[in-house]
Amino acid sequence: MASNTFGQVFRVTTWGESHGKALGVVIDGCPVGVLINETLINEELLWRAPGKRLYTSPRKEPDQVEILSGVFEGQSTGAPISLIIWNRDVQSQSYQAIQDLLRPGHAQYTYLKKYGHFDPRGGGRASARETVCRVAAGAIAKKILSDINVHVVAYLTGVGEVQSKSLLSDAIAKGPAWQMQVRQSEIFCPDEQVTHQMRAALQQAEAGQDSLGGLIEAIAFNVPVGWGEPVYEKLEANLAKAMLSIPASKGFEIGSGFSAAMMKGSQHNDLFVKDKENIQFKTNHAGGTLGGISNGQPIVIRVPFKPTSSIGKEQVTLNQAGDEKVLKWSADARHDPCLAIRAVPVVEAMFALVLVDAWLMNQITCYNKELN
Amino acid sequence: MASNTFGQVFRVTTWGESHGKALGVVIDGCPVGVLINETLINEELLWRAPGKRLYTSPRKEPDQVEILSGVFEGQSTGAPISLIIWNRDVQSQSYQAIQDLLRPGHAQYTYLKKYGHFDPRGGGRASARETVCRVAAGAIAKKILSDINVHVVAYLTGVGEVQSKSLLSDAIAKGPAWQMQVRQSEIFCPDEQVTHQMRAALQQAEAGQDSLGGLIEAIAFNVPVGWGEPVYEKLEANLAKAMLSIPASKGFEIGSGFSAAMMKGSQHNDLFVKDKENIQFKTNHAGGTLGGISNGQPIVIRVPFKPTSSIGKEQVTLNQAGDEKVLKWSADARHDPCLAIRAVPVVEAMFALVLVDAWLMNQITCYNKELN
Amino acid sequence: MASNTFGQVFRVTTWGESHGKALGVVIDGCPVGVLINETLINEELLWRAPGKRLYTSPRKEPDQVEILSGVFEGQSTGAPISLIIWNRDVQSQSYQAIQDLLRPGHAQYTYLKKYGHFDPRGGGRASARETVCRVAAGAIAKKILSDINVHVVAYLTGVGEVQSKSLLSDAIAKGPAWQMQVRQSEIFCPDEQVTHQMRAALQQAEAGQDSLGGLIEAIAFNVPVGWGEPVYEKLEANLAKAMLSIPASKGFEIGSGFSAAMMKGSQHNDLFVKDKENIQFKTNHAGGTLGGISNGQPIVIRVPFKPTSSIGKEQVTLNQAGDEKVLKWSADARHDPCLAIRAVPVVEAMFALVLVDAWLMNQITCYNKELN
Amino acid sequence: MASNTFGQVFRVTTWGESHGKALGVVIDGCPVGVLINETLINEELLWRAPGKRLYTSPRKEPDQVEILSGVFEGQSTGAPISLIIWNRDVQSQSYQAIQDLLRPGHAQYTYLKKYGHFDPRGGGRASARETVCRVAAGAIAKKILSDINVHVVAYLTGVGEVQSKSLLSDAIAKGPAWQMQVRQSEIFCPDEQVTHQMRAALQQAEAGQDSLGGLIEAIAFNVPVGWGEPVYEKLEANLAKAMLSIPASKGFEIGSGFSAAMMKGSQHNDLFVKDKENIQFKTNHAGGTLGGISNGQPIVIRVPFKPTSSIGKEQVTLNQAGDEKVLKWSADARHDPCLAIRAVPVVEAMFALVLVDAWLMNQITCYNKELN
Repeated sequence: MASNTFGQVFRVTTWGESHGKALGVVIDGCPVGVLINETLINEELLWRAPGKRLYTSPRKEPDQVEILSGVFEGQSTGAPISLIIWNRDVQSQSYQAIQDLLRPGHAQYTYLKKYGHFDPRGGGRASARETVCRVAAGAIAKKILSDINVHVVAYLTGVGEVQSKSLLSDAIAKGPAWQMQVRQSEIFCPDEQVTHQMRAALQQAEAGQDSLGGLIEAIAFNVPVGWGEPVYEKLEANLAKAMLSIPASKGFEIGSGFSAAMMKGSQHNDLFVKDKENIQFKTNHAGGTLGGISNGQPIVIRVPFKPTSSIGKEQVTLNQAGDEKVLKWSADARHDPCLAIRAVPVVEAMFALVLVDAWLMNQITCYNKELN
Repeated sequence: MASNTFGQVFRVTTWGESHGKALGVVIDGCPVGVLINETLINEELLWRAPGKRLYTSPRKEPDQVEILSGVFEGQSTGAPISLIIWNRDVQSQSYQAIQDLLRPGHAQYTYLKKYGHFDPRGGGRASARETVCRVAAGAIAKKILSDINVHVVAYLTGVGEVQSKSLLSDAIAKGPAWQMQVRQSEIFCPDEQVTHQMRAALQQAEAGQDSLGGLIEAIAFNVPVGWGEPVYEKLEANLAKAMLSIPASKGFEIGSGFSAAMMKGSQHNDLFVKDKENIQFKTNHAGGTLGGISNGQPIVIRVPFKPTSSIGKEQVTLNQAGDEKVLKWSADARHDPCLAIRAVPVVEAMFALVLVDAWLMNQITCYNKELN
Repeated sequence: MASNTFGQVFRVTTWGESHGKALGVVIDGCPVGVLINETLINEELLWRAPGKRLYTSPRKEPDQVEILSGVFEGQSTGAPISLIIWNRDVQSQSYQAIQDLLRPGHAQYTYLKKYGHFDPRGGGRASARETVCRVAAGAIAKKILSDINVHVVAYLTGVGEVQSKSLLSDAIAKGPAWQMQVRQSEIFCPDEQVTHQMRAALQQAEAGQDSLGGLIEAIAFNVPVGWGEPVYEKLEANLAKAMLSIPASKGFEIGSGFSAAMMKGSQHNDLFVKDKENIQFKTNHAGGTLGGISNGQPIVIRVPFKPTSSIGKEQVTLNQAGDEKVLKWSADARHDPCLAIRAVPVVEAMFALVLVDAWLMNQITCYNKELN
Repeated sequence: MASNTFGQVFRVTTWGESHGKALGVVIDGCPVGVLINETLINEELLWRAPGKRLYTSPRKEPDQVEILSGVFEGQSTGAPISLIIWNRDVQSQSYQAIQDLLRPGHAQYTYLKKYGHFDPRGGGRASARETVCRVAAGAIAKKILSDINVHVVAYLTGVGEVQSKSLLSDAIAKGPAWQMQVRQSEIFCPDEQVTHQMRAALQQAEAGQDSLGGLIEAIAFNVPVGWGEPVYEKLEANLAKAMLSIPASKGFEIGSGFSAAMMKGSQHNDLFVKDKENIQFKTNHAGGTLGGISNGQPIVIRVPFKPTSSIGKEQVTLNQAGDEKVLKWSADARHDPCLAIRAVPVVEAMFALVLVDAWLMNQITCYNKELN
C-alpha cells in the first residue's frame, strides 16, 4: 500500500495537492549527522522552478522549503525530516471553465472512475507539482551521496524531433564536472548547438499552441561495486520504478537498452580488462550493473517523456456526461511546452533516492565483517 | 529489504539455486476459492521449458510442480501456497573448468564483490532458472485474472536484426485469442513469416557460436478502469520494476514509449470518443494507463533482452586474481542462443503478478461503498 | 525500517520534536469520502491536552491542528492527509541546567549511545509530545469506525495502589455510551468513588515530589467477526505492538490476560450459545479474538504505565562523563504526576488505528464474492 | 499484508498446514557466512518435540528439517534459506467425528466466518504445529546471536496455580549458562522443587480430562546498547507483537510490567551507577530498554498462555447450523495438557528473531562512521 511513499530504508513520503495550502515530504531513515540546511534544498528547487527558465510554465511562485523537524544545529538527527513548501501562487480559475470536460492525456478520467471525484482546482496529486517534493528530498539524497563521492547528473538529449548525438563519452570523460556544463544550458542540454535547435523547435511548438516530448539521459558516477539486491530489488528494477513513477514518463532503459535486442552476445558482452591493479571493463553496454548489482562502471539510464497533455490548441472531447465538447484552455493557463525540461532535476532526484536506498541496504546485505 | 519477494498484497517469495536441490515459491495473499491444481501450473511450465522448444537451452529436466500447502480439495484456502520444483537434471561439471574465470556479462563478478563468494556450481540466485518460480506463481495469477476476464499475452517481435512490423492492431483485433496464435509459433512470434526469418538468424548465430538479443511485446486485455495507485505505485511503475527484475532485460516502455519523446501533444493525446453509451479513446498512445491508473484500454508494454552472455566463442577475460585468460565454454554447456524466447512466458507471468496485486489493492483504495 | 510509520494499509507517519517548530502526521490510505474537519480533531486533542485536566502537566499550549492536504470540501479525497500541530509554548530552559546529566528512566542515555547525540531542548522524538500526532490520526480512525458503528473506549482503572474493582460488566452493559461516563471524570475513571481515591493518591504523590504508575483498560464495541489476519498479523499481535509503542507502557493483555496462566481449560473456554438466531459466547475470556481474528465479542485489553520518570525529588545520577551528580528538576519543569491519565486518549487512538487497518485488510483477505 | 511473514530485515515466511504434506519456512535477509547445518536446527526441534517430553502431546513424529537452499558447504550464502519439515505422523481421523461442531476456544469459528471454510483435517494455519517453523528459523537466529555473544533463555515459571518465586536474580547471576539449568527440567522449569509441584498439577489436570495455563519468562543476555528503533519500532513493541502472535498467548510484559502501574517514580527509576569505568544501572525495572532501545541490561519479558482449548471433558457447544451438541474428543486425539510447556522454545525463537532483526536494522540507523 502506501502509494505516496518511495524507498525501503531511506523512505520518502510526499503529500499535498497542486492547488492546496502546501506540499511536503517526510524523510524517514536519513542517517545521523548529514549537513542539511534550507539553502541547500532551495538551490535545487530553483533548478526545477517554473518561470525561472525559458520554455517552462510561467507559474511564478518562488518555491521555498521550510525544515520543520529532523535537523538540529545544521545536522540530521536520525529523526524524520519534515519539509514543507507552501503554495503561494495558486490560480485555479483557469480550470473553472473546463471543469466538466474530460482532458485528453490527463489523469482526471481515471481518478474520477477510481475515487468518484476529481479535484476541480487542478491536477491534485496527479499534478507534476508533486515533484517539487521529490526534488527537495533528492537534494538531501544528493548531499549524502556527495559525502561519499557519488554524483548523479541528468541532461536533456532530445526535444521532439531534435535529438543530439550520443553525449555519453563526453560525459564520462568529464565525470561529475559534467553537471556544470549541463546547467549552463537553460534547458539542461550540454550541447550548445543542439540547445539552439531545441529552442527553435520549442518556439515553433508554442507558436502552434502545441507541445513536444523529450528524452533525458542520466549518469551516476563513482558508484562502488555492490549496490542493489538480487532478484526483485535489482538496482535497475528500482530505477525503472522510480522513473516510471514520474508523471509523463513512458519508458526506461539502462546501458544498451532497447538496442540490446538487436545485438549479438559477442558485441554486447563487456570484457574484463586489467587497468593497473584494478579489474575494469572494456565497454559499458551493461550500463553499470550486473545481475542487478552495481559493477563499478558509470550507471547510465534514459527516460522518454511524452509531450505536455495540456495544449493551447482546441481539442474535441467529451464532458463527464459523455456529450461532445470542445476543450480550449484559457490563455493564462500555465503549461510547459515540453515537460521533459522540468523533469531533468526530477530524474536526478529520483536517481539519487534509489542510490541512497541501495547504499544503505547494502550495509546490511554485503559480507558482514562483524560475523565473519 | 526482502529482495526475494515481489508484490504488496499478492506477495510472491522465491527461493532456490540453479544447481541446488530444488526451487520454490511461497504465495501469500492469494484470495480464497481460486481453483488451482498442479496440471494448471505444469502446463505453464512447459511453455517455458528449455529443451521443449527450438533454440532454447537443451537442458532437459521436465519441470514438475508440487503443491505443498494452501490448496485444499482443489481450491485456495487463503493460507500461503507453497510450490516446489525439484532440480532433476543438474550438471555442474561444465562450470568446473571455468570456475576461476570472470564470465563477461554475468553477475558472478558483482556477487563475488558483494558477498565474498560465488556459487561455483552455476548461476545460483542470479541464474534465469529462478524464473521457473515466477512462471509457476504467474500461472495462479493468470488463473485469477481469467476468472475476472482479464488476459495477458506476451510475444516475440524481434530477434537480433529481425524485427517484425507492428503486430499491435492484429493483436487488439483478436483479443485474448491472440494467445493461441502466439503459441502456435515455437518461438512465440505470431507472424509466421517473421518466425522463419528469426529461425534463420538464430541458426546463423548458433553456427557462429554467438547469441542474439530479442524484443518482447505484451498486452493485457479487459483490464477495467481504476487499477494502479497514484504517485509511487503507478501501474506502469510496478510493471517497469517487474520487467527490469527479469534477468537480461534492459528496458521497458508503455504505449508510445520512447517514440513519445519525438511527438507533439496534439498527436500524442488520446482523444475521448463516445462508443454507444461508453466513453472510449480514439487512440492508445498512453498504452492503457493515465496517471498510473488503468484507463480501460489494452495495456501495452515492450521489453528488450540482451543477447545471452554465455557464448561458444572464445572470449579473453581475467581470472579472479586478475590474470588474463581465455574463456571457452565446454561443448555440453547448456545455453540459449536467444534468452528472449524463454523470457516470453516470464514477461507474461510478471505482468499477471502486477495486475493481480493492483486489482486487490484497488479493492481497498477505490471509492468505498460501505462508507459512502 | 520506517520506524515512524504505523499500520499497513491505513499508514500513519509522524514527525516532529517536543521542542521543535511543529509536529505532524501524514495519513496514507484513508478511504475516500470520510467527513473530516479540524474541529473533529481538535476536540480529541483537547481530551489529551496537558493543562486542561487536573494532574497532568501544566504545559499550556492550546493544541490546534491544521489540515494541509487530503481533505477537500470536508471530505477525504484518497490523497494523503497531512496534519500539522505547531508548537506554541516551548520552554527549553528547564532542561539547560541538567543538560549534561543522565536522567533516570529516560531515553536520553540510549539515544546518546545509538545516535551519538541527544536533543538538549527536551525529549525530542522520545517525548510523549509525539503522541499528539497519534491522537490526531486516531480522531480520523475513530470517525471511520463510527461510520461503520464500531466504537473504542479507554479508561483508567488504577493509579498507584488505588485499583478499581472490575468495571467490565458495567462497560459492556452500557456499550458505546460508556464513553460519556468515562469522560465525566477528569481523570478518565468512570467510577466516581475510585476517582476520589485516585485524586487523593495523586495529591499525595505530588506533595512528595513523586509520581505514580497507572493502569488503563480499553474496549472495542461492535467489531464484526473476521478482522485480523492469521499467524503474524493477529489482531492482538498488532494491538500489543501498538500499545507497547506508547511511551512508558510496560505491558499488554487481552481478555483473561495474565490470569489465563492460572486457569483450567474447562474454565477458560468460552462456550458457544444460541441467542435467538445468532451464535454467541457464554463468556469472553478470549477478549474478543480467536486465532487472531475478531469473534464478534467486545475486544478487551489492558495496558500498564510506569510512573513518570521525571520527578521533583532529588536523584543521584551520573553526568555523561560518568561522574556522580545530583539531578534536581527546576520547579517550573512541566511533568505529569501520572502519565497514565494522559495516555488514555492515546490508547484509544492506537486501538482505533489498529482496527481501521484490520478492517481495510479484511476487505481483501476475506472470502471474495467477485471471485467465488 | 503478508500475514505469514515476520520481521523487516531478517524476514521469516512460514507456510504449511498441520495436516498437509509439509510445513516450511523461507528466511530472507540472513547475513552471509553463518555456519548452519541440519543438525543445529534439528536439535532445537527436539526441544519443542511433542512426545519427547512429559506432559506434551503424544503426537510422535520425529521432526526433521531439510535445508533446500541458501546454504552452501555449511555456510549461509546470502540467498533465501528454505527449510522444509515433512508431516510424517498425520492423523486426521480424530477430527472427523467432530467436524461439524464449533470447538470452544479454537480459531475454527472465526476462520469459517472470514474465509467461508475451515480445514476439516485439523487446525490448518491456526494450529500450533505452525510453530515448528518458528523454532527452525529461531535456531538460525540464535546461532547468529551466539556468534556475537548474545543469548536468549526462556523458562516456565507457572503452571495453573503453581507459580514459582522470582527466579530472575538466579538467572541473572548464572547468565547464559542458565539455559543448561532450564533444560535439565523436562518442563523447562529451572526450579527443581517447583517442577515437582507442576508435574503433580499436570497429572491432576490430566486425570480430570482438563488442561492448565502457564507462564513463561525469558531473558536476553549481553544485548549491547542501541538495538531497537524509536517510536513505532521500539524493541518492546516488536517483542510484544512477536509474543502475541504465538497461538494461545494472552499477554506480554517487560521489566516491571503490570506491577509498574502500582509503583512510584522514585521506586521505579533505575538509577545510573558507575561500575569501574562503565555506566551501569542499580536496578532493572525497565527490563532492558529505554525509549524502545536496548540499554545494555538483560532484557526480561513474561508471557502468559491460556490452557489448551481441546480438553477430554465433554463440552456443550453448537454445530455449524447452530444446534446444540456435545463435543467429546476421541481418546486418541493428541493434545497437550499445558500448551505453555511446548511454547517455551517458541518464545525463545521469537525473541531471537526480534533481536536479530533489531541488530541488523541498527547497523543502518546507528551513528554512521562512514558519513561522519
